[in-house]
Amino acid sequence: MSVIALDDFFTELAGVSSRAILPFFRMAMSVGHKEGKGAFDPVTEGDKAGEVAIRRLIKDRFPSHGIKGEEFGEENITAEYTWLIDPIDGTRAFICGLPTWGTLVGLLRNGKPVYGMMNQPFVGEFFVGDGKTAHLMSAQGKRRLSTSRRALLGEAYIATTNPKLITGSEGDRYNRLENQCKLARYGTDCYAYSLLAAGHIDIVVETGLQDYDIAPLIPIIEGAGGVVTTWGGTSAAKGGAVVAAANGALHAQALKILGG
Amino acid sequence: MSVIALDDFFTELAGVSSRAILPFFRMAMSVGHKEGKGAFDPVTEGDKAGEVAIRRLIKDRFPSHGIKGEEFGEENITAEYTWLIDPIDGTRAFICGLPTWGTLVGLLRNGKPVYGMMNQPFVGEFFVGDGKTAHLMSAQGKRRLSTSRRALLGEAYIATTNPKLITGSEGDRYNRLENQCKLARYGTDCYAYSLLAAGHIDIVVETGLQDYDIAPLIPIIEGAGGVVTTWGGTSAAKGGAVVAAANGALHAQALKILGG
Repeated sequence: MSVIALDDFFTELAGVSSRAILPFFRMAMSVGHKEGKGAFDPVTEGDKAGEVAIRRLIKDRFPSHGIKGEEFGEENITAEYTWLIDPIDGTRAFICGLPTWGTLVGLLRNGKPVYGMMNQPFVGEFFVGDGKTAHLMSAQGKRRLSTSRRALLGEAYIATTNPKLITGSEGDRYNRLENQCKLARYGTDCYAYSLLAAGHIDIVVETGLQDYDIAPLIPIIEGAGGVVTTWGGTSAAKGGAVVAAANGALHAQALKILGG
Repeated sequence: MSVIALDDFFTELAGVSSRAILPFFRMAMSVGHKEGKGAFDPVTEGDKAGEVAIRRLIKDRFPSHGIKGEEFGEENITAEYTWLIDPIDGTRAFICGLPTWGTLVGLLRNGKPVYGMMNQPFVGEFFVGDGKTAHLMSAQGKRRLSTSRRALLGEAYIATTNPKLITGSEGDRYNRLENQCKLARYGTDCYAYSLLAAGHIDIVVETGLQDYDIAPLIPIIEGAGGVVTTWGGTSAAKGGAVVAAANGALHAQALKILGG
């Protein structure tokens, strides 16, 4: 697989998933959120439709590859190349009509993330990275991304989706870190990692992530010059408690607090 | 002033403020966030440029009206008609590159909000309301808005910008309300009120608001069928601790908890 062919393939993935998912965005109102068995749930339907479209395209083009997705589980994941899919990362944003969710697809080679995308079709922003470079495609054209050079916690912008999800002693350490930063922003999901790659956010901290929540973002973050690991400093590819930073200096300071 | 003429005028306001503010959005990276005297601060510059453009258009068209804006203070605010301007509501979102900030402009007659707009030019969404109706204009066309009919806290989606900003006994009451809701979302700013009008979010709660943070949104919320007051149940037009709800039933339940 050449990088150029993969570039085109990820653009295709963004297109098919966007067409599958967007019809369900902001449908909530019209269906009245009925609960219970057999009820129609736009976010679940959007998740499924997106993953079906993405899986179909991958299987068609790369039949020997493995696939793991949020909705439909694992297939052939001992293959050299495996794909991870989170059709709608930011379920709560999606449900609330906020355009801050994203579609994540990552390609792993022997367990290491080598290519990834975050697509936000309602806003029209498509982030891709291969670990060496990262780009943002939008109506304004294609732009190479690089992370910020802010190297002190006191000037850093930190983001997490929901600080209340970081509990116990992890919560204490997160709060200690947040209190040292210049500004905190919540409700960010995958957009935070993408905007870290783009140089706007400096630190993203979360816990309890699945592999498909973070592995697709690693080649984007690293391709833009950022650093992302678990709170223990190991590979973030399997998820768990994760910290991403714009540069090594900031990452080291964050890790010192989070690592306990 | 006829309603039709005002519709056109708000569209003009959205256009001039968008052209003034958008060039500063996501500039953060390239200017390196230098601090100190004389430093260039994109969000302050965007705020000023937006308010200058909005004030110029209002003064040109309605020279006898009063104006109050976040950046340039008050002029002639004892006039029958007064305009309130918040050029960038959601400063933190703007700084972090997130497309969830908005430009707020409201028209008050003898202190009562009679017309208002929320414009998000990066996403391309423009919400307007006159207290009787509310509309969303976007690339998908013009859509009449109505709030959700969800009438129980247990099925409601609640939003607040930052739960840590609601402190002391107010914080306790907010948490009691949030815990009874189905789902909470943070980091929402003015988008939450707009999406409440559109039927996706059911309750929005905040404290410490200025008049220009909320008065422009009142005709949108009420025009879509929602209810918005202070936590004490009085008019929210002057800001303070505010609660908006999709309908009267939900508002009454929220007020019972928040009102203490």
